[in-house]
Amino acid sequence: MIRIGILGYGNLGRGVEFAVKQASDMELAGVFTRRAPESLQIVTPGVPVVSINEIASWKDKIDVMILCGGSATDLPVQTPEMAKIFHVVDSFDTHAKIPEHFAAVDAVAKASSKVALISVGWDPGLFSLNRLYAGAILPEGKDYTFWGKGVSQGHSDAVRRIPGVKNAKQYTIPIEAALDKVRSGSNPELSTREKHCRECFVVLEAGADAAAVEKAIVTMPNYFADYDTTVHFIDETEFAKNHGGMAHGGKVIRAGKTGENGNNTHVIEYSIKLDSNPEFTASVLVAYARAAIRLSENGVSGCKTVFDVPPAYLSSKSGEELRKELL
Amino acid sequence: MIRIGILGYGNLGRGVEFAVKQASDMELAGVFTRRAPESLQIVTPGVPVVSINEIASWKDKIDVMILCGGSATDLPVQTPEMAKIFHVVDSFDTHAKIPEHFAAVDAVAKASSKVALISVGWDPGLFSLNRLYAGAILPEGKDYTFWGKGVSQGHSDAVRRIPGVKNAKQYTIPIEAALDKVRSGSNPELSTREKHCRECFVVLEAGADAAAVEKAIVTMPNYFADYDTTVHFIDETEFAKNHGGMAHGGKVIRAGKTGENGNNTHVIEYSIKLDSNPEFTASVLVAYARAAIRLSENGVSGCKTVFDVPPAYLSSKSGEELRKELL
Repeated sequence: MIRIGILGYGNLGRGVEFAVKQASDMELAGVFTRRAPESLQIVTPGVPVVSINEIASWKDKIDVMILCGGSATDLPVQTPEMAKIFHVVDSFDTHAKIPEHFAAVDAVAKASSKVALISVGWDPGLFSLNRLYAGAILPEGKDYTFWGKGVSQGHSDAVRRIPGVKNAKQYTIPIEAALDKVRSGSNPELSTREKHCRECFVVLEAGADAAAVEKAIVTMPNYFADYDTTVHFIDETEFAKNHGGMAHGGKVIRAGKTGENGNNTHVIEYSIKLDSNPEFTASVLVAYARAAIRLSENGVSGCKTVFDVPPAYLSSKSGEELRKELL
Repeated sequence: MIRIGILGYGNLGRGVEFAVKQASDMELAGVFTRRAPESLQIVTPGVPVVSINEIASWKDKIDVMILCGGSATDLPVQTPEMAKIFHVVDSFDTHAKIPEHFAAVDAVAKASSKVALISVGWDPGLFSLNRLYAGAILPEGKDYTFWGKGVSQGHSDAVRRIPGVKNAKQYTIPIEAALDKVRSGSNPELSTREKHCRECFVVLEAGADAAAVEKAIVTMPNYFADYDTTVHFIDETEFAKNHGGMAHGGKVIRAGKTGENGNNTHVIEYSIKLDSNPEFTASVLVAYARAAIRLSENGVSGCKTVFDVPPAYLSSKSGEELRKELL
């Protein structure tokens, strides 16, 4: 059994706990937290909840530590720290800072002979894989990534910071006309506005000026100004009833040309539709925790990404079973 | 430059030739054939066309031999033979015989320290990868593979063998209602008849009995009896005009549940739409030829499949470029 540790018990950590339950070759060995351990109510009976301060003493009791903190401030510190002690998997998703994070983690993991898989999830993660596979197969082509329909945490936060806003949720939505153009194989040039639109559901503070809030949203640089944005004002009851979910999804589509004069077009589309973004991301993390062990068993150490992992390592089945059942 | 050889110059071999032209790190070094070499007209200027009888003398002039023969009789013989001499990639697609083919090729390739990648293409190949990834991530779920709309060579051949049939083409078509059910995440039980239907375009011999031919088709065991089959009788002009293409496609869809009581459903769908089945398959073979070299450079030998290949090995880009541009 692969002994899994979870560091950080928010939505993602809880998702990892559920995903580990589905894995016949894994067991949850401990949950580690910055909070007071006794304040945490976890799902799996008999599993210790431990203060992060004691984590080093779990060196020989955990095979893979799954890091469930945030990319902004937690993971840049935690992933290198933890890779000194454990094989680790994280979901670091600040695309622009991946090279920097990779370098920091790689130095530590090489020194400790641990495997550290970073940026595991769906984007970065499964979407990255699909960009890579499709691009390697159809080099004369172009790929498009669409996100949604789903909640963007960053955009929701930005709306909540506007004076007069009590609560807000922002949905990113791919535009059907853009999807159709891309699926046609014509490899169109699409502006930001043509690819996605944004929809906000806002609860106002008493006495707030709706028109002013709407204007502040739709003209906000970087976040909304480049998109067609619709703002709906709703009350707290409706907000609680209809906007508490964590559904998400998206698509990676690549069209490319082959043959004489490039006269044949092929379209590859990878699409996901998720009821729970954190639970799905957690399921990806858990599959890659298995891969971390396999990599280590094969003499690998250092920082790796989904690009480096042979697909078979994700599965609990043997090579023979995989060839017979899935190939 | 990776020096590529092509063994067998039909539609697939020609597709490989075009795909190699798109690869900046590859060059076509030779085309090998059972036919009289002078009878072959290839596309790339200056590349020798050589009799298969002389292929062994090309040992040091070819880095990867891409085997473009058929799965029924060519590859079971050629892949083990060629793996004595070269790194090889084949598209062996008789699913039931993959374990046997794997064993035969593995023994030879281990002895010769060559890498032999078998069953590369889209199914087996990219579809297998998607069944594996989706299944590892959503273990409590079910996957569905749909083929088409596209031409089934075996079914077209079966129709052509019926007395009175001069020419015939058979299309396999996924049924929309089945796709909708699967995409809903309900993991339905679907019969063969509910998943795909079949459509035949038939040119009759003069004086043939159309009703008798139609009955012979739709009642044919294994091939048609379990499907709803539509038969269209057309003339040779229409046949030549509308049914000469090699378009194909298909989908792998998996829905799975996560979380407390499995109350969240996720759907992953991988879909391809191809103008030319052989050219797309060829493009996959060429990307895996690059991977064969990378595997060998990393000390690997023996028979491998798409399950064993780290995705990064398919790309001509460095790990650093991939992380920066695609992760």
